[in-house]
Amino acid sequence: MAETIFAKIIKGEIPSYKVYEDENHFAFLDIGPFAKGHTLVIPKKEYDNISDMPEGEYIELQKVVLKLVKHYRKIYNCKIGTLVFGLDISHVHIHVFPINDELEIFDFNKLHKYLDGEAENFMNRLKLN
Amino acid sequence: MAETIFAKIIKGEIPSYKVYEDENHFAFLDIGPFAKGHTLVIPKKEYDNISDMPEGEYIELQKVVLKLVKHYRKIYNCKIGTLVFGLDISHVHIHVFPINDELEIFDFNKLHKYLDGEAENFMNRLKLN
Repeated sequence: MAETIFAKIIKGEIPSYKVYEDENHFAFLDIGPFAKGHTLVIPKKEYDNISDMPEGEYIELQKVVLKLVKHYRKIYNCKIGTLVFGLDISHVHIHVFPINDELEIFDFNKLHKYLDGEAENFMNRLKLN
Repeated sequence: MAETIFAKIIKGEIPSYKVYEDENHFAFLDIGPFAKGHTLVIPKKEYDNISDMPEGEYIELQKVVLKLVKHYRKIYNCKIGTLVFGLDISHVHIHVFPINDELEIFDFNKLHKYLDGEAENFMNRLKLN
C-alpha cells in the first residue's frame, strides 16, 4: 500500500501546521478549512476507517480529540464540532472545527483559505503542547 | 432548562426507532436521515456540547459509537461516518451514518425520507441488543 500524505506529514517530509503531537497521535491544521482553525487529528498508525481500529486505540485517539475540543472551546467560545468522513485519504482522521459564523451550517463544501501568515498565527493560538 | 425532545425519547414519551440502549446511552434512527439507517447516539445525561462532558463519560459514549460503527460496517459493507454538530438540540448527540450512494458527499442538507414501514425494517436490521 502506498504511503498516504499523512504518513509524510507525521515524518515531517511534508510541512504542516502542527498543533499537537504525542507518541501515537498527531494533529495539524487542515489547509482547506471548514472554518479557520479546523484541525485534523490522526493516529500515527494507519487505519483505513475507524471501524478497523481496536477499541483501545480508538479511545486513545478520542481522548486527544476531546482534549482539543475542550481547549478550542475556551479559545473560540463557541461549540466545537467533529467529523469522521475520510473518503479522500485512507488514513483515519477526525476533523475538529469551531462552529462559528465562518462555518456555513452543514455546508462542508465551502472551504476557506488562509491569508499569508494566518495559518501560522492560528497554529500558535491553538497549540496544545 | 426545558426538557429537550431527546429526554422525552429516552423516557419513551415520544416513540423512536431504537437500535441500542444501555444504562447510560440510547441510540435511535434519525427520521430525517443523511442516508437510511442514520443513527443518533446520545448519553442519557444531558450535556449541551461534548466539550462539557467529563472525559470518562465521553469515552463511554464513544465506546457505544464504535460498537455501532463496527456493527454497521458489516451490515452496509461501506465506510461509516460520524458527526458531532448539534446546534439544533442542546443535548449531545453523535450522528452515525453509512457513507454510501445515498449520501451526497458532504451535503448534509439533503435529507431522505423513510417510506411506510421502512424505518422499522432498518431498526430491525441495525439493532444491536
